[in-house]
Amino acid sequence: MPSVWQMNRAGVGVMTRYEEVAATLRERIEHGIYRVGDRLPSIRAVCQELNVSISTAQEAYRQLMDAALIESRPKSGYFVLPCRIPSVLPSVSRPAQCPLDVSQWDQVLELVATQRDDKRLLLGRGVPNLEVASLKPLSKILAGLHRSNDLHGFNYDKLSGSPELRQQVARLAVASGCLLHPDDVLITTGCQEALSIALRTLTQPGDVVAVDSPSFYGTMQILKANGLKALEIPTDPQTGISLEALELALEQWPIRAIQVTPTYNNPLGYTMPEARKRALYQLAQRFDVAIIEDDIYGDLAYTQPRPLTIKSFDTDGRVLLCSGFSKTLGPGLRVGWLAPGCYREKALHMKYVSTGASATLPQLAVAEFVAKGHFERHLRAVSRQYQRQRDIMISWVQRYFPKGSGISYPQGGFLLWVELPADVDCVRLNERLAQHAIHVAPGALFSASGKFRQCLRLNYAFTLTPAMEEAVRTVGELAREMLSEVRESSLAMK
Amino acid sequence: MPSVWQMNRAGVGVMTRYEEVAATLRERIEHGIYRVGDRLPSIRAVCQELNVSISTAQEAYRQLMDAALIESRPKSGYFVLPCRIPSVLPSVSRPAQCPLDVSQWDQVLELVATQRDDKRLLLGRGVPNLEVASLKPLSKILAGLHRSNDLHGFNYDKLSGSPELRQQVARLAVASGCLLHPDDVLITTGCQEALSIALRTLTQPGDVVAVDSPSFYGTMQILKANGLKALEIPTDPQTGISLEALELALEQWPIRAIQVTPTYNNPLGYTMPEARKRALYQLAQRFDVAIIEDDIYGDLAYTQPRPLTIKSFDTDGRVLLCSGFSKTLGPGLRVGWLAPGCYREKALHMKYVSTGASATLPQLAVAEFVAKGHFERHLRAVSRQYQRQRDIMISWVQRYFPKGSGISYPQGGFLLWVELPADVDCVRLNERLAQHAIHVAPGALFSASGKFRQCLRLNYAFTLTPAMEEAVRTVGELAREMLSEVRESSLAMK
Repeated sequence: MPSVWQMNRAGVGVMTRYEEVAATLRERIEHGIYRVGDRLPSIRAVCQELNVSISTAQEAYRQLMDAALIESRPKSGYFVLPCRIPSVLPSVSRPAQCPLDVSQWDQVLELVATQRDDKRLLLGRGVPNLEVASLKPLSKILAGLHRSNDLHGFNYDKLSGSPELRQQVARLAVASGCLLHPDDVLITTGCQEALSIALRTLTQPGDVVAVDSPSFYGTMQILKANGLKALEIPTDPQTGISLEALELALEQWPIRAIQVTPTYNNPLGYTMPEARKRALYQLAQRFDVAIIEDDIYGDLAYTQPRPLTIKSFDTDGRVLLCSGFSKTLGPGLRVGWLAPGCYREKALHMKYVSTGASATLPQLAVAEFVAKGHFERHLRAVSRQYQRQRDIMISWVQRYFPKGSGISYPQGGFLLWVELPADVDCVRLNERLAQHAIHVAPGALFSASGKFRQCLRLNYAFTLTPAMEEAVRTVGELAREMLSEVRESSLAMK
Repeated sequence: MPSVWQMNRAGVGVMTRYEEVAATLRERIEHGIYRVGDRLPSIRAVCQELNVSISTAQEAYRQLMDAALIESRPKSGYFVLPCRIPSVLPSVSRPAQCPLDVSQWDQVLELVATQRDDKRLLLGRGVPNLEVASLKPLSKILAGLHRSNDLHGFNYDKLSGSPELRQQVARLAVASGCLLHPDDVLITTGCQEALSIALRTLTQPGDVVAVDSPSFYGTMQILKANGLKALEIPTDPQTGISLEALELALEQWPIRAIQVTPTYNNPLGYTMPEARKRALYQLAQRFDVAIIEDDIYGDLAYTQPRPLTIKSFDTDGRVLLCSGFSKTLGPGLRVGWLAPGCYREKALHMKYVSTGASATLPQLAVAEFVAKGHFERHLRAVSRQYQRQRDIMISWVQRYFPKGSGISYPQGGFLLWVELPADVDCVRLNERLAQHAIHVAPGALFSASGKFRQCLRLNYAFTLTPAMEEAVRTVGELAREMLSEVRESSLAMK
């Protein structure tokens, strides 16, 4: 008997005809039926073979070009490009083995204090593409709410959030395997407030929190602000936080909470396999510790159904699930949410002292946007786009970055993690990039122990223009320059 | 030579003709020229004497009726009502003389967890009147911003807040004597976040914070959430926090911050005289301690110029001024601000970890509303209304509440503090009122030491309907009932 969420998950993720054609051709390329440099069948031949219209075949070819799998040569046809898969993944992290204070605020501030009139090309920020047609209805709904504004829109909403929005959040959470009642949800001012409330609900200053590593700098800074210590756990770029290392850590240290981003991890891109998510939950049960699960990128799945959350295995309320609409609809709305499990009462108090009720009208607008089906349409549109752009961005990094760079391969979201050769210091690289009006997110932000200095995070949400390619080329070039400088100086020292 | 802010303050607060007429008549009543029960001159006589039109004189009489100073008797004319001034003020508070943990969360939750579909008449909440014409342009501006929405509106704004809004906040602050640069201002998610950030910037868990007493329950709950102890200082219902008691406390306890609401105090209604504000600042200087000044009601002055803030005396950046637009434009917008003085760097970090940047579009809308002059017009309109309604509400309380009840006499804002005879327990009173679908803010919320149980806070922002008068009558009646029960049972025990 299918459960509620399984039924809900059916019927989403259906491919259009051209996507099917593109998938067929992609499969043939990946299986070597068409090899690098081969000329592909003509559009006409594809139409006949697969029984589709010319425009469908053209669209499929366009998609493969966008994914940098093939190229069109004038008057010659379509050709398979050098195959980029498999690329080298970043290495498994080996952070410090003891709880540490977090620092790096200056670097984080430089990244987040950027302005709207910033002239730099910001390649590293966690901002989605906002110039998409599927977002337009949200502006319309907001304008309509303000036109018809009665006193309610300027008044406080419920402390826990608008009932309409909490209902929609509960409905959407079914897709990740969660059966939440609207009263299990607290609306917050962005996911950052959800994470902040979750950590303050569970901890006292001086407490130790186990985190995946690298870990989102926003959470790391919450640890710093609350006088908490980060215990960074080795993390695999394919399967996530090491359960073996975490178990040892739980035996050794008085860990108050485990904070992870197990789906489309920021920044490392992996998704923990379902079995490992379940095992992580069981580990937390065994040691009676709470889990803070950041799922802010979880809705941006390239294929359906989207992965389950750890929260979906939660039978005793120990998982505090943090999410929101910042990475799907826009961070400027500041609409996030927290499902605090059995910690609801304390979390509600923390919410009250933090900001009181959240702003009323953005909640009503998002609720209407979701209720009318715009949200799921929007997700399909942007996820397709992000998947295509991931492949393009990876092809650029492979082309322009030093040989041997590790590159993540996310199945959702819009963030790429690149591990350069060990001699490149990305904080210094960023300083040099400033002269070219380019900014990346240096890896050091994502660690309390000064790891990941040779890593950086790139954003591929925005339309990938030639100027963007040029910028990525510049990043790679300056990185190579730094590498040769280091090698020359080490030769000179010998 | 007038200073910048003095020049700015000129030209505001000009009275209309009918207000002048009303003021003249009010003065005569207050000076006993017309005594209680006297018949006032006819409209026609006033027109001749003061050389005004009939409609102006009528409007002036209407205003005096609204203020419950006179009444109209059919076919007889206008008569002076029993003079309600001076009423008895609440007593000087005598809180506990040592730092205490804050509790009362359950009671606060009951007050703030009210819903939009609440069927109860909420007489105690700190919500302004939102059904006023002068607020309409804000809805229009918001609708316009959403119609013309480019990607910026959904994107992050600056972490410190929109430059446009910070500029307007700095301009407005001139009226309270503050010369702020826009960079001295952080935009927050409501004044609650400003208070929360200010307290977390200055303190560590276990620290002692001196507060006026009674004190806003929202701040008290921030103390609780952060493990801080409240040291409640005796407070005078006319001049505010006792500087003498505060000085003794500063000598005796390791006080990390002084938290006060010196202008249109919530809940006690007083405004500290300028000289005492300055003396408080000097005291803080002498003991090298920071002041958190809550000025959220400060713009709702009944007469111009509005009182100076303590911040206006601040020469070394030790005053953290917290304010916002929740009590003027609407709490549902969640637009607050903090001028953190010399603590800007740490406050910015606290802002980042709390909610990241604040929502973009409400900031732009409020900035435009202020820049176009709507804000100052709106303030004039609502302040006039609140002043009239203060007098009506006071007359109701005098009429219906037990004899000997103390009543505050605020010169701004929209909150009344009533001190009932000592035998009335307002938490229990509230329980009885629930059966009548009425809710007040019980005084116990405003103290850590269980004081003010015989006090309650009433809101007179909303249009004072007969239903409202009936509700106030019911509150008074049930309070009298409780009084006689207590007296009977104490007689029975003798």
